Amino acid sequence: MFPPRTPPNVQEAHRSIAPIYEFLARYESWLAAGGKACCDFALGNPQTMPLPGFVAALRAAVTPQDPSWYAYKTSEPAARELVCASLKTLTGLDYPPENIFMTNGATGAHLVIMNALLGAGDEVIISNPPWFFYEGMILLSGGKPVPVETLPGTFDLDVERIERAITANTRFVIVNSPNNPTGKVYSAETLAWICRVLERASERNGRPIYLVSDEVYRAIVYDGLAFHSPTKFYRNSIMIYSYGKTLLTPGQRLGYIALSPQIEHAAALRTILFSSQILSGWAMASALMQHSLSDLEKLSLDVADLQRRRNRFVTGLRQCGYEVGTPEGAFYVTPRTPIEDDVAFSSLLAEKGVLCLPGSVVKMNGYIRASLTANDDMIERALPIFEAVRAQAL
Amino acid sequence: MFPPRTPPNVQEAHRSIAPIYEFLARYESWLAAGGKACCDFALGNPQTMPLPGFVAALRAAVTPQDPSWYAYKTSEPAARELVCASLKTLTGLDYPPENIFMTNGATGAHLVIMNALLGAGDEVIISNPPWFFYEGMILLSGGKPVPVETLPGTFDLDVERIERAITANTRFVIVNSPNNPTGKVYSAETLAWICRVLERASERNGRPIYLVSDEVYRAIVYDGLAFHSPTKFYRNSIMIYSYGKTLLTPGQRLGYIALSPQIEHAAALRTILFSSQILSGWAMASALMQHSLSDLEKLSLDVADLQRRRNRFVTGLRQCGYEVGTPEGAFYVTPRTPIEDDVAFSSLLAEKGVLCLPGSVVKMNGYIRASLTANDDMIERALPIFEAVRAQAL
Repeated sequence: MFPPRTPPNVQEAHRSIAPIYEFLARYESWLAAGGKACCDFALGNPQTMPLPGFVAALRAAVTPQDPSWYAYKTSEPAARELVCASLKTLTGLDYPPENIFMTNGATGAHLVIMNALLGAGDEVIISNPPWFFYEGMILLSGGKPVPVETLPGTFDLDVERIERAITANTRFVIVNSPNNPTGKVYSAETLAWICRVLERASERNGRPIYLVSDEVYRAIVYDGLAFHSPTKFYRNSIMIYSYGKTLLTPGQRLGYIALSPQIEHAAALRTILFSSQILSGWAMASALMQHSLSDLEKLSLDVADLQRRRNRFVTGLRQCGYEVGTPEGAFYVTPRTPIEDDVAFSSLLAEKGVLCLPGSVVKMNGYIRASLTANDDMIERALPIFEAVRAQAL
Repeated sequence: MFPPRTPPNVQEAHRSIAPIYEFLARYESWLAAGGKACCDFALGNPQTMPLPGFVAALRAAVTPQDPSWYAYKTSEPAARELVCASLKTLTGLDYPPENIFMTNGATGAHLVIMNALLGAGDEVIISNPPWFFYEGMILLSGGKPVPVETLPGTFDLDVERIERAITANTRFVIVNSPNNPTGKVYSAETLAWICRVLERASERNGRPIYLVSDEVYRAIVYDGLAFHSPTKFYRNSIMIYSYGKTLLTPGQRLGYIALSPQIEHAAALRTILFSSQILSGWAMASALMQHSLSDLEKLSLDVADLQRRRNRFVTGLRQCGYEVGTPEGAFYVTPRTPIEDDVAFSSLLAEKGVLCLPGSVVKMNGYIRASLTANDDMIERALPIFEAVRAQAL
């Protein structure tokens, strides 16, 4: 299966994402068979046209204003200033511009941090159900993923279990709120608690355990709920953001890393992060995206409209007999499958043109994940199919 | 200097690029002091406005044609087909589209290959003087760089030394033609020779030693000289290309990996490369750049004009008393410094507003590297300064 001498961590990393490959192969054949008739809830991909403001921002930024317009970029000073202003509003903290690293999306940001911080034996605590690629990325970077289950029923962080999972080798803990796939938004109390745990453990270890806050969905929160960045509660925080969710343009790769203004060893950390960013394949945001940022910062998808769609979909699913929670944020609805085998159930749905992610792909066995980036028409066409397939499966 | 518990390979990788940091810090202060009066030969960055065709291509591709326009992209089928057509013309070989991986530039391509292939103890042979970041990238990926000197005087590949440097742990050899920084274009004979060496060594090792061909400058060759891709001579070849040199837009990150049509273990290699590409920070070319590719494939900077500029610069430098070879390709002219200390000499030039890279930064001690991406006016203003600073230094 692997070419000769494939490194063990590459093999492990590949195996950790093999279930996604298997799903994607089926997904592509279903899409090819069903075409536009498919109701596509499978990935967090747009099913409506891009925001006109996004297109206008790129169009304006395409015109070069000087010979360096498309030259090598690291983090443009203007982009850093825009991010600092936005973080001041979000957290109340004054981020120094040199603490901001403009990256090719949040995935690039994770890579840069992992490549800078992880050596053999270094452990990273993640919460299950996790984002698809945490485990594989940690393995590929040479670290060791330490998954901890969330609380049953609520999907809230299990701070006590996280505390027990911390060892002398723990390098950082990833917190993802609003959460993909569960839609959970962690409360200020929970976040303050985990931060106290990390303070104590860092003291015991004699060096900081970092909190990596993956907050790419922070602008997508429903019902007037407040989003709290864990970075407000803990000095040794490293924030990761992406514009690809709020703008629904994940193919344009624009994000950043922000080191807390109070982080320890700040200068030394900036240095190794910058080296890592260069040597991790020049993991910088493109020139064009950095030039567009002043316009993009003002834009967002319509969260009220997404909330309306969430309500319609969740209510509709319940009317069809599904057990389904109401996501507090992000764009995923995760109904329980009427039969235990979520892969089999998602195949039954797919045969009728409704494409959802089997939950087991993201360690959420017995669920499916359906993205609210599907359009209204898809939801209306899908609900009767959800009802019929449930009846068929039972 | 490093934060606590920084992994040893991160420390080594950082140290390998520290001389570049030191140069860049000085470079930025010189640029800030000199502004537009500077004659900037330091990096391979444009000093003229972007090609109008490039701007037009991006402007056209900005307008979305469907809801998926800015969705997650891996390697778009249309982009792969364009690359295959271009490689058919270049090499005569029929590349299957699935052997093409669209990446965020050539640096992203190197990362994906290194992350897929290198484990602890795996060696990569590079030739000195090397590209800035090979050594650091190999170290960060967990491999071991094995530098081999080129032949004195000609900077040609020293195939005999490379052969002696091969061990049971050799994973791949990077060949960079046309070469940055030396401007050398390797002959078909030399390339056929190294490929025979690799064939024999692979047989001895019982598994392929890959040849990674970094041919980002292949379109920039002077005096009617033929470029030969080493991938034509060796089945276990992995090609890396970037559009950033030919279009002089390195900030837009567009490149690819192409696996030879005859490569062994092709399916297994494709699988781990794709996993590596996902897990290496989603190292894909952006949606916009892939949509622009049909227009971009037809574009190039004016090589004849670059050759004219090379001739003027090399002749002018010789008239000022410099010993300087004539580059056969790529965009760098590398005069010997009149004094041995190239860092000190580049500082003398910089004090008069002429910014060049000290050769020692790329292990080319006693040289400076000057990029032909400077404009004509910079060359005319710089030549009298080159003359005066030489007289001053001697």
